[in-house]
Amino acid sequence: MDYAKESLKLHAQWKGKLETVPKMAVDSKEALSLAYTPGVAQPCLEIQKDPAKSYELTGRWNTVAVVTDGSAVLGLGDIGPEAGMPVMEGKCVLFKAFGDVDAIPLCVRSQNVDDIVNTVRLLAGSFGGVNLEDIAAPRCFEIERRLKECCDIPIFHDDQHGTAVITLAGLVNALKVVGKKMEEVGIVVNGAGAAAIAITKLLLSAGAKNIILCDRTGAVYAGREKGMNWVKEEIAQVTNLEKKSGSLADVLAGADVFIGVSAPGVLTGDMVRTMAKDPILFACANPTPEIFPEEAKAAGAAVMATGRSDYPNQINNVLAFPGIFRGAFDVRASDINDAMKVAAAKALASLISEDELSPEYIIPAAFDPRVKDAVAKAVAEAARQSGVARI
Amino acid sequence: MDYAKESLKLHAQWKGKLETVPKMAVDSKEALSLAYTPGVAQPCLEIQKDPAKSYELTGRWNTVAVVTDGSAVLGLGDIGPEAGMPVMEGKCVLFKAFGDVDAIPLCVRSQNVDDIVNTVRLLAGSFGGVNLEDIAAPRCFEIERRLKECCDIPIFHDDQHGTAVITLAGLVNALKVVGKKMEEVGIVVNGAGAAAIAITKLLLSAGAKNIILCDRTGAVYAGREKGMNWVKEEIAQVTNLEKKSGSLADVLAGADVFIGVSAPGVLTGDMVRTMAKDPILFACANPTPEIFPEEAKAAGAAVMATGRSDYPNQINNVLAFPGIFRGAFDVRASDINDAMKVAAAKALASLISEDELSPEYIIPAAFDPRVKDAVAKAVAEAARQSGVARI
Repeated sequence: MDYAKESLKLHAQWKGKLETVPKMAVDSKEALSLAYTPGVAQPCLEIQKDPAKSYELTGRWNTVAVVTDGSAVLGLGDIGPEAGMPVMEGKCVLFKAFGDVDAIPLCVRSQNVDDIVNTVRLLAGSFGGVNLEDIAAPRCFEIERRLKECCDIPIFHDDQHGTAVITLAGLVNALKVVGKKMEEVGIVVNGAGAAAIAITKLLLSAGAKNIILCDRTGAVYAGREKGMNWVKEEIAQVTNLEKKSGSLADVLAGADVFIGVSAPGVLTGDMVRTMAKDPILFACANPTPEIFPEEAKAAGAAVMATGRSDYPNQINNVLAFPGIFRGAFDVRASDINDAMKVAAAKALASLISEDELSPEYIIPAAFDPRVKDAVAKAVAEAARQSGVARI
Repeated sequence: MDYAKESLKLHAQWKGKLETVPKMAVDSKEALSLAYTPGVAQPCLEIQKDPAKSYELTGRWNTVAVVTDGSAVLGLGDIGPEAGMPVMEGKCVLFKAFGDVDAIPLCVRSQNVDDIVNTVRLLAGSFGGVNLEDIAAPRCFEIERRLKECCDIPIFHDDQHGTAVITLAGLVNALKVVGKKMEEVGIVVNGAGAAAIAITKLLLSAGAKNIILCDRTGAVYAGREKGMNWVKEEIAQVTNLEKKSGSLADVLAGADVFIGVSAPGVLTGDMVRTMAKDPILFACANPTPEIFPEEAKAAGAAVMATGRSDYPNQINNVLAFPGIFRGAFDVRASDINDAMKVAAAKALASLISEDELSPEYIIPAAFDPRVKDAVAKAVAEAARQSGVARI
């Protein structure tokens, strides 16, 4: 199927992928008096007395805002807020279909950090949480950090953390397949955008000790002079402690794991052959991965994952964000923290039993019906244990 | 029925009055590839080439944001953004039920004009229009004016203009009942809040020549020293040209029409008896009107309207805003201007035939099924004729 052509045709028919639908009929004076005036004054007064009641008497408890500035949409780059809307609507559709979360798409007509932070901050009382989407790095890090500081609801940048959660889930299982340990393996993360940074941080949270981040300039290390920014400086304090320099090919020699969130075709079979025995490759550039599975396998890859649905082991964010918000909302969490993300990843990984586990099956399928509840339950429990649950 | 108690119970059951519901199922890989990646990239690119396509390929064409700062909610006053949410959700329910418009409730955590203007301005690309709601005067006037200047979509403050449209509709028919002419009658508008100002302006647009605005201080006139603000100064340039001073009772003597959007019980039978023959009274303070219909009739009122559903002739905004936005959206209007408001009022008035017209029936009922289409059609036509229609 020509997805581009067919999707455009469908979008022109749909004219928007979401509807806002009342939960009750307002077909009589009485119904109107209950859903609206004069009856509605009473819930208003209850919330005025105790703003937390807004979670019980309005849809806030179950509503996420999906917010973009249109600066890094899919692989399309900076296409602007209006052009980002089809993706945001799509994301909202997935929130409802996979997480039973009501979602509202908001595209901000500014790429200024203050503008985006202020807009979201001022609206935070309308939502239970905010999903930042397709905002370019390194701006996305500052926006997320500042919003987490000033908002009393979870702020979650899915391009970072959703991807990181699925990657961790996949890696946990891939390591089981090859009989290696998270604490011991050498990991190279290629790319220095939002996803690469978040993956690196989450792997560290989950016990990884030996990670080298690579960007176009090569290995990132503390004190490197070329192509650095504050985010890379920060990550260089906790990765590549031996300060290895050199190209991706240089640092990949002897590594156990390659995680690419970078660019098509940057990994060759020859590079894979220099890695340790039974190398694990996550080639997530989409739609064209860093290396195609056929070539990777020929070069000795033991486990291979991509972002594509037409190969085994798809790294697909839809496995994570709906269940993560479902779980966070179920306990009215004030934050989505690392403990909750690690719990989500482990819950995903554990859906595949030891018997089922294989190089071709390390990650549940997108439509596995167990995913939402398993992730939500683990996230809610982690929220409770880490003290961010409010009910 | 105890509406307060019953409504609170229902709100606790509903847990929000709206759902965001996908228009399509995403139950297969293929469906996911069409509603989301990779297919969704194509509509994104089309909008990037031509941002107006956002009206054809996303829900923008049919989506209104209902925005408040919680500063003047119902008769409850400044109860804060979270506490305003039940009303905003209710408004969104009415938008869908009565206008087939998708509506999103947004409560802004600031009562600063710049904050509210910036928040709405930055999000304007996500919506087809904005309905401002329950924002206190005179701040609401500045917010509306500035947003109209900087946004390319209709900005409509319903507390002002919705009320003004219904009032004009009712007055057109009431004047027919008593055989008087808009151009000739003396009108006293009592109250100097958002609704009073908007009613006054719209009546002027519709041909009224002789209006006196009254506030707590008495008649408003150019150069009055006490209790003025820039809005009243402005309105004093085009009303009360004889610069009458004095109390409401003073200026009401001999007037043909009283329109109250003020406070309970401020109009007495004795005051009505000083008015011209066959006086028309719109006593819209709610739930307790400026004067009750029984007392007004006893004092000689020829036609009487209130804001209440348990008396004839209810001035109910639900007659206007859903059809107004429906009509504006149908022609992708860039504004909702006075011509469109007057057209809406005349369409509403003309739903009642000369035969049906009576002192007890000057305004269609809230559930009259003809209202939406009649208003929408008139508004769309007026948008075309006044040059703000974009399709």
